[in-house]
Amino acid sequence: MIKCTFYMTPGGELIDQLDNEQVKDFLTKKDGLLWIDIEDVTDKDAELLSDVFRLHPLAVEDCISKDIHPPKIDDFEDYLFIIVHGINYHIESEVVETTELALFLGKNYVITSHDVPMRSVSSMLDRIRKDGRLMRSGADFLVHDLIDALVDNMMPTIDEMDERNDQLEDEALHEPKRETLMSIMQLKRSILALTRVILPQREIANRLSRGEYALISERTQMYYRNIYDHLVRIEMLTLGLRDMTESVLSTYLSSVSNRMNEVMKVLTLIATIFIPLTFIAGIYGMNFSNMPELGWRYGYLGILIVMAVIGISLAFYFRRKKWL
Amino acid sequence: MIKCTFYMTPGGELIDQLDNEQVKDFLTKKDGLLWIDIEDVTDKDAELLSDVFRLHPLAVEDCISKDIHPPKIDDFEDYLFIIVHGINYHIESEVVETTELALFLGKNYVITSHDVPMRSVSSMLDRIRKDGRLMRSGADFLVHDLIDALVDNMMPTIDEMDERNDQLEDEALHEPKRETLMSIMQLKRSILALTRVILPQREIANRLSRGEYALISERTQMYYRNIYDHLVRIEMLTLGLRDMTESVLSTYLSSVSNRMNEVMKVLTLIATIFIPLTFIAGIYGMNFSNMPELGWRYGYLGILIVMAVIGISLAFYFRRKKWL
Amino acid sequence: MIKCTFYMTPGGELIDQLDNEQVKDFLTKKDGLLWIDIEDVTDKDAELLSDVFRLHPLAVEDCISKDIHPPKIDDFEDYLFIIVHGINYHIESEVVETTELALFLGKNYVITSHDVPMRSVSSMLDRIRKDGRLMRSGADFLVHDLIDALVDNMMPTIDEMDERNDQLEDEALHEPKRETLMSIMQLKRSILALTRVILPQREIANRLSRGEYALISERTQMYYRNIYDHLVRIEMLTLGLRDMTESVLSTYLSSVSNRMNEVMKVLTLIATIFIPLTFIAGIYGMNFSNMPELGWRYGYLGILIVMAVIGISLAFYFRRKKWL
Amino acid sequence: MIKCTFYMTPGGELIDQLDNEQVKDFLTKKDGLLWIDIEDVTDKDAELLSDVFRLHPLAVEDCISKDIHPPKIDDFEDYLFIIVHGINYHIESEVVETTELALFLGKNYVITSHDVPMRSVSSMLDRIRKDGRLMRSGADFLVHDLIDALVDNMMPTIDEMDERNDQLEDEALHEPKRETLMSIMQLKRSILALTRVILPQREIANRLSRGEYALISERTQMYYRNIYDHLVRIEMLTLGLRDMTESVLSTYLSSVSNRMNEVMKVLTLIATIFIPLTFIAGIYGMNFSNMPELGWRYGYLGILIVMAVIGISLAFYFRRKKWL
Amino acid sequence: MIKCTFYMTPGGELIDQLDNEQVKDFLTKKDGLLWIDIEDVTDKDAELLSDVFRLHPLAVEDCISKDIHPPKIDDFEDYLFIIVHGINYHIESEVVETTELALFLGKNYVITSHDVPMRSVSSMLDRIRKDGRLMRSGADFLVHDLIDALVDNMMPTIDEMDERNDQLEDEALHEPKRETLMSIMQLKRSILALTRVILPQREIANRLSRGEYALISERTQMYYRNIYDHLVRIEMLTLGLRDMTESVLSTYLSSVSNRMNEVMKVLTLIATIFIPLTFIAGIYGMNFSNMPELGWRYGYLGILIVMAVIGISLAFYFRRKKWL
Repeated sequence: MIKCTFYMTPGGELIDQLDNEQVKDFLTKKDGLLWIDIEDVTDKDAELLSDVFRLHPLAVEDCISKDIHPPKIDDFEDYLFIIVHGINYHIESEVVETTELALFLGKNYVITSHDVPMRSVSSMLDRIRKDGRLMRSGADFLVHDLIDALVDNMMPTIDEMDERNDQLEDEALHEPKRETLMSIMQLKRSILALTRVILPQREIANRLSRGEYALISERTQMYYRNIYDHLVRIEMLTLGLRDMTESVLSTYLSSVSNRMNEVMKVLTLIATIFIPLTFIAGIYGMNFSNMPELGWRYGYLGILIVMAVIGISLAFYFRRKKWL
Repeated sequence: MIKCTFYMTPGGELIDQLDNEQVKDFLTKKDGLLWIDIEDVTDKDAELLSDVFRLHPLAVEDCISKDIHPPKIDDFEDYLFIIVHGINYHIESEVVETTELALFLGKNYVITSHDVPMRSVSSMLDRIRKDGRLMRSGADFLVHDLIDALVDNMMPTIDEMDERNDQLEDEALHEPKRETLMSIMQLKRSILALTRVILPQREIANRLSRGEYALISERTQMYYRNIYDHLVRIEMLTLGLRDMTESVLSTYLSSVSNRMNEVMKVLTLIATIFIPLTFIAGIYGMNFSNMPELGWRYGYLGILIVMAVIGISLAFYFRRKKWL
Repeated sequence: MIKCTFYMTPGGELIDQLDNEQVKDFLTKKDGLLWIDIEDVTDKDAELLSDVFRLHPLAVEDCISKDIHPPKIDDFEDYLFIIVHGINYHIESEVVETTELALFLGKNYVITSHDVPMRSVSSMLDRIRKDGRLMRSGADFLVHDLIDALVDNMMPTIDEMDERNDQLEDEALHEPKRETLMSIMQLKRSILALTRVILPQREIANRLSRGEYALISERTQMYYRNIYDHLVRIEMLTLGLRDMTESVLSTYLSSVSNRMNEVMKVLTLIATIFIPLTFIAGIYGMNFSNMPELGWRYGYLGILIVMAVIGISLAFYFRRKKWL
Repeated sequence: MIKCTFYMTPGGELIDQLDNEQVKDFLTKKDGLLWIDIEDVTDKDAELLSDVFRLHPLAVEDCISKDIHPPKIDDFEDYLFIIVHGINYHIESEVVETTELALFLGKNYVITSHDVPMRSVSSMLDRIRKDGRLMRSGADFLVHDLIDALVDNMMPTIDEMDERNDQLEDEALHEPKRETLMSIMQLKRSILALTRVILPQREIANRLSRGEYALISERTQMYYRNIYDHLVRIEMLTLGLRDMTESVLSTYLSSVSNRMNEVMKVLTLIATIFIPLTFIAGIYGMNFSNMPELGWRYGYLGILIVMAVIGISLAFYFRRKKWL
Repeated sequence: MIKCTFYMTPGGELIDQLDNEQVKDFLTKKDGLLWIDIEDVTDKDAELLSDVFRLHPLAVEDCISKDIHPPKIDDFEDYLFIIVHGINYHIESEVVETTELALFLGKNYVITSHDVPMRSVSSMLDRIRKDGRLMRSGADFLVHDLIDALVDNMMPTIDEMDERNDQLEDEALHEPKRETLMSIMQLKRSILALTRVILPQREIANRLSRGEYALISERTQMYYRNIYDHLVRIEMLTLGLRDMTESVLSTYLSSVSNRMNEVMKVLTLIATIFIPLTFIAGIYGMNFSNMPELGWRYGYLGILIVMAVIGISLAFYFRRKKWL
């Protein structure tokens, strides 16, 4: 289900062109501004995009297809076609999912399209419904607001990942289980996926802020620069997070091998103490006829004491060597 | 066996030049368009390419040789010589094989050449046979269609690799065998090989979309841009796949060592429990004359109980320590 | 708590604009120079920044927000907005903390803002209080002095990390404990975080020294170049430190496995020497009626000697093989 | 022993300058072309190079010194000084050796110099001796022919390394020995060395094909482009080979640890089965006076059966758990 | 102790400026050339540098401070300030130490400064003392000679490291000790440090050879190019050395684990052979009244033979399985 929203800023000469039946139904007028909200985009709506708005068929296809497209920006002179990604972190399955937002930015209109509900878009629509003046700042600023909300929504995800990482470090240290390893590797993979989404996004923000596109006013560029700075910060945090996950993985591996070593060491020490003692017992279990010790009065007691002395000495020796 | 196909778009002044006997035989006229389809390229055909079409001998050599050439684009002003690779994933042998497609793109002709059957080329020929208008869009668009089909064919391969990876993860977790390791490493190698093919290809699509070549019309550039976007997406998926394979490899290694540790631990514990017991049995197997316990009525029963208590305590202790 | 300091160099036409009640209170006149020192920045102060100084609201927001911003430099033509980071190494927790210093550099004023006390800023203020001529060198030089002090403060941190690394190497070699590993990984993470802060900072110094900004006089550029050189040196030291930490990690891992091996080897050898001896004792513990050795006069003594010979030979053999 | 060869293409105004006694001796006239072949370059010959040909003393020094020089190209306006490397793979010692070819390319002369016999140079000389027209294509084409032959000679080496790698994989899988590891690491090192030689060489071919040098005619540039493509292909194969060697190394390591584990597991299982049985035998070897089982008629037989049942059950249990 | 040397080439208009008492004392006139040699630079000498030679105070500070500065080149128009590093390899401590040489290159003067004795500088001074004409080639050539000598001195160090590496490989293979590991890691660290010094140095040579600085005559540029080539070669050797050290590290690790495995395998096999035998002895040590074998005439002999057969069969079986 693709959801498409059209925003028209004042002075839009497109309004006349949009004067057909289907569009009229969705039209809402408020404070001189217009927007259309299509819940489920049909092929007819797609035609509207290419015919009425004169958008390039390839961009429209990208916009309504359900495939995943990497973040990008295409300059069609009359309008920009931008794809940016938001992120959702499913804490239970530990998977980072990217949600795609396609944007057409024209001189005085914006079209957004996405196939999963996006908080940043819906809250923006709510704010516009309440206060139409928001759209007075121009189409380029509206796009800024949308992308900014999307990027702001990334921070909680990174915080959650950070917390999950701390949890996993704890688990790795105190009770390393098979599931801990799976979770660590899943988290690491999520962070790598995140990095790959943020990098091109940062590049898009950079290009939007550099005055490369005529559709972005000089005043707004500085605001895109702010988004860029925000993404640089998120990237830095993500890199830090990656290092932390690496280190949790090392902790897990060393923790597991440590436990194994601990067990083996204690067990081997027990065996080692009893083997010489068993040997001594074996000697006096031999059936030689001429074994004078066997007849001694305190022979048995003596050998028990000798065994105790040997056993305790070995244990002490091992402890002094810090083997126990 | 090299298969070569010639496509001539309308208004081609080359038609007159091609007016010789051998060419006539292969000539097919339909809807004012021409194409020649040579199943097995001979040296004579190669001469045709360099003499009639005035193609550079080095390009012709690259085109008909059976060696593997990395993807590249050469600008000969009158025509472009492009080499692109498709991929085939042999799921049974887990090897990614690249199939090479050499393309000459002239003002109003296209020549394709490949040595293994290619679905993208044959389906294009079928479509042209059914509807000659396809070639009306110009030679540059025809090349776009061919490369686009090639790139589209990559997606199923990546999906198959993804599935294979999931299979291997399962195997690594539940029954890690020597063959699993071999398969994981084979898959990893295939993905690396794939990455090395996609990167230069992406660069080719980028250059074709940037207006660098006069032979690519402005209208078509946007379509090459679409191929570029597609390849960026495939690259992103491939990088994700690489991370997943890395993580499957870690899973395998940890799974194998885990199993080994499990076995050793249980066995060592059994030995550790019985060694002190055997020592006690050894003591009462000694032949000292003065061992009062031996004469006690419940001596034997008592020692059996003592042994049971020691054995069970040890087992409990190990279980409490989570060693068992 | 954000602390903000304003410095005005002579000839500042801003003085008249600042002629309002609130500012007057903080105004101090000395040697014809002015500075205002606000301990706890309120929203009203922030308004002062954007209204009186005409600073961009986004920059003011970055300046007074408590979030962490990566080092950056923004050119607003009339003034530069610079964020640089100092580092603090908490030796007890082994965490590197970066402290952020935001700077506005105008033609004849400088505004600094930071939320933790910074030695470089406070010592600069002390020096200005003692000798107002310091500000005669111009605003660009004042900023240089502040950044220079910040960068100089990095060196002791790196030295401390270096020492900590040596300590850890010692620990890893002579008594590798779980805590040692934790510390090594913490140190490694700190160094990586440090690298990520130094790199953009170096880039900022480079741009300030290249004559990219009109506000930096040619004379001062060379001093920024000096900061750049300083940061290159710090980077080199940090990279060296990273290599050292890697190597300490290897030392730790090999030290731990070495100790484990040592223990297991000695224990296994003891067991191996006694197992054949116990077997011999077992033979003469059998109850066959026809065992002539049992009746021999020196049978018992003989077998004891045989056992001693076997045990000592095995020990010698193991020692000669360097297994003991 | 440095071997130097001079080739003069027709129209060479240098011929007059070369009119001295020593040169005359080596002069051979054939089909209007000249070449001089000096087996063992003396200091006098070196002087000839700098005095008669007016070559830069530094280039002459590089040319006649026996040190290894990385591939490079120096533009002296009147001539180019090129160093390229061929590769020799000594299959018995598994070492890749690079052989250096120094080339002076003037307007109508070429001078080659190398200190080990080179197949590409000698076969070129043979071909010139047979057919002088080869030199009619100009000096730039002659250099192309020489470098092309050198690069062509790389392919068999890579094939040999590929085969060696397959051999080592087999060995690693079926009988991993210490020597296998040594060979794998030697091969890996050779491949890394190869990569480092190919990269600058590719860059040289790229620069020669880009029209950067006036001495390379436009027609010949395309042929240098061909060498470039060839080197890109070799680079791709080398990278693939590197991945394969990595994977053989993993195979070896996992194969060795697998074998060790296999041995330890089987042995530990044997011990584990016999330890409880020995304990039972120990019990009935005790000398308590009141052990009723000892007097039972089928006591001995019974206990033997009990032991067999326990032993076989344990073996079955271990097999069911897939431990055996 | 900073040692500073001044060289003036003929036609130096600076000579008049230097006409003060302190300078006169150090002045030596020979063949129309001048040089001053200050053993221990005082603050007064430093003032001389900034006042008489009009050198930038920051450069003078870098020059006389004892801190380590990374290699760099600063263009002050009238003169260049260059810092290059030589390397010293202390074979006993296995540490690479860089020695810093600061150079001022003016139109007709050179000033060198270093705080440890440098062979390249002192031998240059000796040569100038013997033959003043050396300085006739100009200041830029003098600097070339100094840097060239410095770079030439690097080769023996790399050769020594290479030898040390071979030694360590031998040790790792035949008697891997804890110290071997320490040495390998020390060597690896030294090589990494070396790489980090060579890279910026190469860049300096490159910039000096590209005609970027007016003070370097065209003739001399080619000689700087030669230094650049030299450094490229050293870099290549260093990279090869790094690979070798990596491979020695792998050899060490595999050698250590191999030895450990060898020991454990042999010992476990011994234990495994004796455990079943001990069990048999245990059976016939039981005190059942009805054990017919005990009364057989050749019972004892028979069981000894059975034991020998079992023991030898197991040993054979293990040997056939290549476990022994």
